[in-house]
Formats: sequence, C-alpha cells, structure tokens
Amino acid sequence: MRKIAIGFDIGGTNLRGALISEDGRIIMRHSVLSEADKGIDFVVKNLAALIKKTTEGENIAGVGIGIPGIIDSHNGILTQAPNICNVDDYPLRRVLVEKIGEKIPIFIENDANCAAIGEWWIGAGTDVKSLIILTLGTGVGGGIILDGELWSGADGMAGEIGHITIFPDGAKCNCGNFGCLESYASAGAIRRMVKRGLETNLETIIGDKVRNISKERIPEMAREAAIEGDEFALWIWDEVGKALGIAIANLVNLLNVEMVVIGGGLSNAWDLFAERAKKEAKKRGLRAPLKRVKIMKTVLGDDAGILGAAYLVFKAEGLTRM
Amino acid sequence: MRKIAIGFDIGGTNLRGALISEDGRIIMRHSVLSEADKGIDFVVKNLAALIKKTTEGENIAGVGIGIPGIIDSHNGILTQAPNICNVDDYPLRRVLVEKIGEKIPIFIENDANCAAIGEWWIGAGTDVKSLIILTLGTGVGGGIILDGELWSGADGMAGEIGHITIFPDGAKCNCGNFGCLESYASAGAIRRMVKRGLETNLETIIGDKVRNISKERIPEMAREAAIEGDEFALWIWDEVGKALGIAIANLVNLLNVEMVVIGGGLSNAWDLFAERAKKEAKKRGLRAPLKRVKIMKTVLGDDAGILGAAYLVFKAEGLTRM
Repeated sequence: MRKIAIGFDIGGTNLRGALISEDGRIIMRHSVLSEADKGIDFVVKNLAALIKKTTEGENIAGVGIGIPGIIDSHNGILTQAPNICNVDDYPLRRVLVEKIGEKIPIFIENDANCAAIGEWWIGAGTDVKSLIILTLGTGVGGGIILDGELWSGADGMAGEIGHITIFPDGAKCNCGNFGCLESYASAGAIRRMVKRGLETNLETIIGDKVRNISKERIPEMAREAAIEGDEFALWIWDEVGKALGIAIANLVNLLNVEMVVIGGGLSNAWDLFAERAKKEAKKRGLRAPLKRVKIMKTVLGDDAGILGAAYLVFKAEGLTRM
Repeated sequence: MRKIAIGFDIGGTNLRGALISEDGRIIMRHSVLSEADKGIDFVVKNLAALIKKTTEGENIAGVGIGIPGIIDSHNGILTQAPNICNVDDYPLRRVLVEKIGEKIPIFIENDANCAAIGEWWIGAGTDVKSLIILTLGTGVGGGIILDGELWSGADGMAGEIGHITIFPDGAKCNCGNFGCLESYASAGAIRRMVKRGLETNLETIIGDKVRNISKERIPEMAREAAIEGDEFALWIWDEVGKALGIAIANLVNLLNVEMVVIGGGLSNAWDLFAERAKKEAKKRGLRAPLKRVKIMKTVLGDDAGILGAAYLVFKAEGLTRM
C-alpha cells in the first residue's frame, strides 16, 4: 500500500500541514493559526487538533514537524524557539504523544533543515548529494545536506548561515553581532534600509508604496519599486545580492557542495539580486569549487519545509531517494 | 599481529614519513628533501625511494599520504597542487603502484584533511565526534570532521577555510580575492605586515631581528619581538587573532562542531593570539554553539598529518577509534 505521511511547518503566524505521499505529492493541505504569541501550549494544542483532523480516516505512517528553533531531534525536544513564547527545553514529542497517542511516530526538526531535506529529496537538488539552502525570510535560516545526510551539528544548531559575519563593522544584527548576513539579506534588513532611505529624503517611489501598508509587505513594495526602475530600490536588492554572494563564496570554499538553493520570502525577488549574488560569489570563490556549484532559486517554495518534514517519516520507514 | 602503517607528509621542502602502529605511536621516522620545485616526477621518485626504505623488513598494512592540494582520494589522483611543479590530474596512486608494486595499499588525501583526521583520532579531539582544524602555515588550510567522518566535499575541495572572506575590502589574497583569512592569519600575512611596518619606519625591534635572516623565519621573529613586548609585533598578533576569531565564529555558527583546533607553524605563537581570537569569536558567535565549542591548539603539532595519513590505512583495515 502506498505510504502517506503528514508534514507540518510551524510558523510564527500559521501552522501548515499536508498529507504527502511517498513519491512526494501533496494530497491535501490544512492550515490554522499557530498562536505562537500565546505560548507553546497554544501552538501544541492547535498542532494536536490539526494532526487529529488531518489523520482522520487516513492510514498515516508518521508525522514530521518543522519548527523554527533549536531542536534536539533525537529526543524530540524543542530546545529554543525565539518566535514562540515560553520555550525552554520543551519536550514536544512527549507532549504530543500524550495528546494524540503513541501509534503515530513523530519526527521533529528545524524548519530550515526540513527545507534543505525537501529540496534535496524532491526539489532543486534531486540530482545532487550535497546542497545548502538559505531561507531569506524575516531572518535568514539555513540547512546543510552533505552526502545525502542532514548535518544538523553536534547539538542540532548547525546551519545558522544568517549569522555568518559578512561585514565585520557592518549593521547591528538581532543576535548582537555586527554585519551578519541577516543584517543585509532578510526582510528585516530590507525594512531597515527602506526606513533609513526614507528618513534621508531620498528620491524614491518606495515612500508612496509603503504608506498605509503593514511592515511585513515592505520587501514586496521594494520589489515592485525595483521592477519599476526605482534606483533606491535597485540599490537595496544590490546590497542583498552582494552580501549573499560573499556568503555563498564562503560556503562553497568551505564545504564544496554541489548546490546552493535560495528560498524564503525574498526568493520571490530572486531575479533582482541573482546576478549580483553570482557575480560576487564568482569574484570571491575559488575557481574550481565555484565552477562546480549550481546556485539557484527554490523549486518547492513554501512547500520545501512540509515535504522535508514528511521525508523524515519515509526515511525512518526505509525509503531511499530515487 | 600488531598492524603498522606508514604515514607521509609531502611538504614543499621536506618529505616526511613515519612507521606508525595502530595505537597511534610513531615507531620510526624518515625525512628527505621533496624537490617539489623540480616537479612531481622528482617528488614521486623521492617518495617511492622513501617508501621502499621505510617498508624494508617490515610488514606494512599500507601507506597513507598527505599532500597539499586537491585530491581525488577515491581514484588516487592529485588534481591540483599549487606548491608542486607540473601537476594537473596526476595519477599519483597508479604511478606509485608502478614503482613499488601492488602489494601495499596506498591512500592519498589532502594534508590538512590528514591533520584533521590525526587530531580526531589520537590528538586534541579524541573525545569529540566533530572538529575543524585550521592549519596556519605559509597559507591557511583546513580540515573538517563531522560525526567521525572527514567531509572533503563533492570533489575533494572542502575545507578551504583560508579563503573565507573576513574583510570584504581587505588585503589582497594570493587567490585573487580580497580580505581572505589567509591574508591575515598566515606566515605570508605576517611577512606582509612586517614589511609594511618597516617601510613606514615604525618604532619596532622587528627590523633588527629580521635583518639577514630568511623570510621563512620572519613570523618567528615577530613572535620573539612580541614576547619582548614590542608594540608593533603585539599588534600583528592581535590582527591574526581578530581575523581568526571572526572565522571561528563563522565556522561555529555554520557547523556547530564540538572543537576547533589551531595547527600549522603559527600555532607556536598561539599564546600571543589565543585570547584575542576567543574574544572575537565570543563577540560574534551565537551563544549556545559557541559555549559548546572547545577552541585549542594542536596536540600533535607537525605529526598530525602523518598520523592522520596512517589512520586512512587502519580505517580501511576496519579499525575504529576507541
């Protein structure tokens, strides 16, 4: 019988789940609010309800869950999760088992790691054995696949590519450091650049576009403005590309992977910064490993995480990638 | 019967070999000139003679060879080796088999990768499963062990930590890029800093120390001067520590390894830049993975490479680290 797993992606706003077949097709989707601001107990209550709803009448091989945070995936513990209230070594798997029973195996992994697995399994990287994904969203996440296996670090904390120092004396990052990639190539960084540009009365159409919209949509407006030829907006995406290119060169020199995949919300604007990123990477990377690496946009988009989470289930069942 | 392997380290000047027992003891050493400047054929001739001499009367399980360059270790091919003349996809293993026969298995690996394996096997990292070594020598090399396995990249080119960009607008590197770690934390970088300092008539005792000595000994003189309290010399080591600290923070954030080992000739001056390196890493690294990582000087020193090379033999024979 065809095996089916559920993949979940727990975001700060939404909790998305899908039934996924072992050939990587998404059969059905569900989504509810995550209520992450109310704390982990609310998130887990919502997650358990969604699992029950999704599994009803289905024969499920297991549940895979991607979460932004530091995960002890072996023990199913959510060590830290900056975007969910009240998380400190939270025993997520144990609590979920209490709510949904022991029959369904549960796998938990960092969300960017899930995205890396997803792209490797059934997305951009089906032909490669090693890849790195950079998810350019509110922050910058990362996941690393080496020789077909996730490298999540000694304690599940690997892949914090957003906190590689790009400009040692650069902009302050949320982590406390200066000049991190995240300070230049995230939605937060773009909002900072837009804010500073508007404060200095630059001539730009972004000012009109961002009036009366939520701050979440500012990167989208910067994208629109750049497409319309606004010079300030084009400069912003050039900054994104430059920082990203330096990071890519570092990754390639260090790890000699076959592919770098760019995901996250900002990848919608990939056409605006791809050229600059590749040019900067080429300028700084060593010739041979740089020639080898493919640098490309996500193929799975927002679904990379839920697909990767589902793969955790199939892998435990003995599935190997075709 | 106790197994014995030979480990070799092919340097630009010397070709060092040693008989090594499977418990990691060095039983006997040999060393000859490598004649790398005369081309790979001379190196191989010298290597083959040294292998014959070393194996005479001994029952050898195999030969492990560490070489500075890009290695296709699976096929035993020396893809590139900047410090040896006339190397371009040189079939090292095949040529050696022609010279010494098929009876002794031959393993070939990048020299910094061998050093990483050596430290992991029997040096600084016997208690950890993941470590990165940085060899600060003429250039900066690196080797990466993840979960007890060498990660040498998709094409054997991983670990080029010397070519991580630290200061995007910094000093020009031999690789063509600007601001690489190697431009700040290598013997070459120290020679550059000393030269520039002396050109600008800084008050320093280094000038007297480096008169009439070979350029190879300049870092040693910078070390002596710093120990004697020379401010310019202390500044040089501070620059080394700062750049190294940024690199270490990047490595730790990216890979969440348990240990970073500092080797190579400059590690003799570790006491002069360790504090600065750790301080800079602490300033920039994420709290949890940085708290976890041990940053320390090589335990095996110059022998890390030959020991790691020998381990390649023992591993193929089924040895697992105790």
